[in-house]
Amino acid sequence: MPRPHVVIIGGGFAGLYAAQALAEAPARVTIVDRRNHHLFQPLLYQVATAVLSPADIAQPIRSLLRGQPNLEVELADVTAIDLANRRVVLADGQIAYDYLILAAGVSHAYFGHDEWRPLAPGLKSLEDALDIRRRILLAFERAERETDPARRQALMTFVVVGGGPTGVELAGAIAEIAHHSLAKDFDRIDPTTARVILVEAGPRLLVTFPEKLSQAALDDLRRLSVETRLGAAVTGIEPGIVHIENDAIAAETVLWAAGVAASPLSKTMGVELDRAGRVIVERTLSVPGHPEVFVAGDLAALTIRRGQPLPGTAPVAIQEGRRAAQNVIHAIAGLPPLPFVYRDRGNLATIGRNSAVADIRGLKLTGFVAWLAWAVVHIFNLIGFHNRFLVAFQWVWGYLTFKRGARLITNEVDAETKLIE
Amino acid sequence: MPRPHVVIIGGGFAGLYAAQALAEAPARVTIVDRRNHHLFQPLLYQVATAVLSPADIAQPIRSLLRGQPNLEVELADVTAIDLANRRVVLADGQIAYDYLILAAGVSHAYFGHDEWRPLAPGLKSLEDALDIRRRILLAFERAERETDPARRQALMTFVVVGGGPTGVELAGAIAEIAHHSLAKDFDRIDPTTARVILVEAGPRLLVTFPEKLSQAALDDLRRLSVETRLGAAVTGIEPGIVHIENDAIAAETVLWAAGVAASPLSKTMGVELDRAGRVIVERTLSVPGHPEVFVAGDLAALTIRRGQPLPGTAPVAIQEGRRAAQNVIHAIAGLPPLPFVYRDRGNLATIGRNSAVADIRGLKLTGFVAWLAWAVVHIFNLIGFHNRFLVAFQWVWGYLTFKRGARLITNEVDAETKLIE
Repeated sequence: MPRPHVVIIGGGFAGLYAAQALAEAPARVTIVDRRNHHLFQPLLYQVATAVLSPADIAQPIRSLLRGQPNLEVELADVTAIDLANRRVVLADGQIAYDYLILAAGVSHAYFGHDEWRPLAPGLKSLEDALDIRRRILLAFERAERETDPARRQALMTFVVVGGGPTGVELAGAIAEIAHHSLAKDFDRIDPTTARVILVEAGPRLLVTFPEKLSQAALDDLRRLSVETRLGAAVTGIEPGIVHIENDAIAAETVLWAAGVAASPLSKTMGVELDRAGRVIVERTLSVPGHPEVFVAGDLAALTIRRGQPLPGTAPVAIQEGRRAAQNVIHAIAGLPPLPFVYRDRGNLATIGRNSAVADIRGLKLTGFVAWLAWAVVHIFNLIGFHNRFLVAFQWVWGYLTFKRGARLITNEVDAETKLIE
Repeated sequence: MPRPHVVIIGGGFAGLYAAQALAEAPARVTIVDRRNHHLFQPLLYQVATAVLSPADIAQPIRSLLRGQPNLEVELADVTAIDLANRRVVLADGQIAYDYLILAAGVSHAYFGHDEWRPLAPGLKSLEDALDIRRRILLAFERAERETDPARRQALMTFVVVGGGPTGVELAGAIAEIAHHSLAKDFDRIDPTTARVILVEAGPRLLVTFPEKLSQAALDDLRRLSVETRLGAAVTGIEPGIVHIENDAIAAETVLWAAGVAASPLSKTMGVELDRAGRVIVERTLSVPGHPEVFVAGDLAALTIRRGQPLPGTAPVAIQEGRRAAQNVIHAIAGLPPLPFVYRDRGNLATIGRNSAVADIRGLKLTGFVAWLAWAVVHIFNLIGFHNRFLVAFQWVWGYLTFKRGARLITNEVDAETKLIE
């Protein structure tokens, strides 16, 4: 009997850890991703804010899984999943599976306003991060050359939409760029007069954290001169203008860190989805009626604690990926699947230099201690000595010099071409 | 009397060192570049071949010149130079000058075949380097998924046109990627069977080096399985096919490292140019008839030794930039200009791991010793502790592990969009 074929879609945290957990399984494994690299998403905002280079937080999937003889890596674009015929449909072919682990992730939701997407980019891929880096750095360059004071102020106004970890991290980092990294580099503008506005529709920042820590984050952002607007929704975005409730703010740079929209693959499956398009799974992570199909990571909608859905974080994705893989091994062996149990090791978010919040099994940390914990946890969780060392060095260097090591504006030409188009 | 205004066009080696040499000058200085960063071009091929990240070899011009109160940096696109009215024309304005240092550099020449440009990209900017990196890495990924043996071989065939330092370095590095970095990462293809073909129209490689070293480079490339075709001209390039003399080679990746084409700015000046469009300058680097205008770096055509034009290297550009700045200072002080004297400190090119050639004042080195000299000289000449440290670490790491730290395929989506367009 040929060994069963396990297909994993997505090389993020869930897919990668599922693949690794299948190293000894009596199966052929294929992992499919559109990109050749696994991305350490928790540090992606540092690429967007000119601290790190893309290669510091990304590694080739092939290289990470090199030691697994039962595994193949496919660089391909998955367009649909055909549950009835147990096939994954690619842009240029198809792959039959016996077991499927779907870990295709999510992107940002614009709440029915997809026309805002080009005006307010989100942060999910390395390309997004480089695009945001270019926008931030170019805004200051354009302000330097702008003679109209109102236009100049609009160029130096940055609006970040969404008060979750990514929004808080981006807002804090942009404020630091303005106040420290660029402060002395311009002649006609004073970068320290830049406005950074963080908009959150809910009543507080970092809603997955205890309230005390939300308040600490708010205080830290205020210290960095970030203006935070809570309970305020973005009602419109036009080129150069953001409407927040009844207020029109002239801002050339708007960044989107709100909402969750599932990978469009989930819609091709014909199964029950939640409002964001995530697949509603059993406690075993399998799709109801399809015990051979598991969903792991951000794309899985699983509610286990007091009606609260699990957060879309790396630890959840890693643990789900591993459990999905174990359940595939169980199924091959004819054993019943195990339910997913989330082991909450803590929750961290950074605001800026010496400033973070941490909720570690009820222990609430703020300020320098939380920031140090954040740094250590992230270095520790990066994969590979090379990346750990490069990131650690650049953090220490940036901490001592206040400089940003990746202050590059690239692809300007393309950006301009796009404007012309 | 207001202080004279010195405008420098270009933030490469010539422009940057000219700006630094004007730090104490009794003048206002403006340096204009389309890009926000100075690029350490001698290591650009290492970005193209996945060793280094863009930020490792680039730094913001503003940051490098931060300490000069008499200097402004303009991120702008220069479209023409109006010698008669002493103005630099920008895409969105103009700048009047009293003295001009033109250091706009050169790009590759396709010898009247500009239609080859999109099929065989050159290596001048960070964008070029990332484009080449993507092409090289994607070629192996596509080969892995290709079932037709002929198409697969074409995907694993790389042609590098031009046997100067850049061509030799690219060919050697691609061979190393195939033989070491990727060797064990694929299932259906064997990357070590990739063909790398280096084409040079002249009779030998590295024509600015002594013949003995050209031969050593040829031997080292052969050891890396690079096929070198000397005295062979590219006569045609179509998608997937390169014509070399009467031979048609099926190759999906063609890289261009031949010829010199001056910045189009030189044509707007109405002065005498050489065949490549470079400005023919006086021994003082000034433009004949315009003692207030100097040209430095690759864009200056200056023949000083036995009828041989000066090579387009970083040391020549740095020394010319400084001399042009000194001559501006002389002119302001009413002193006569000084002729340019090139101090030749040596010539280095690397072929691969443990392999380089060096010609240092008649001392000819090859192999490991030359390679070590090459590495030390390049680390030493990088600007800034941050970059030196990052590059040195990544070289040591890559040397020990045979891995490439920046093996990322980015912007695939754009690349595909372009194909569709």
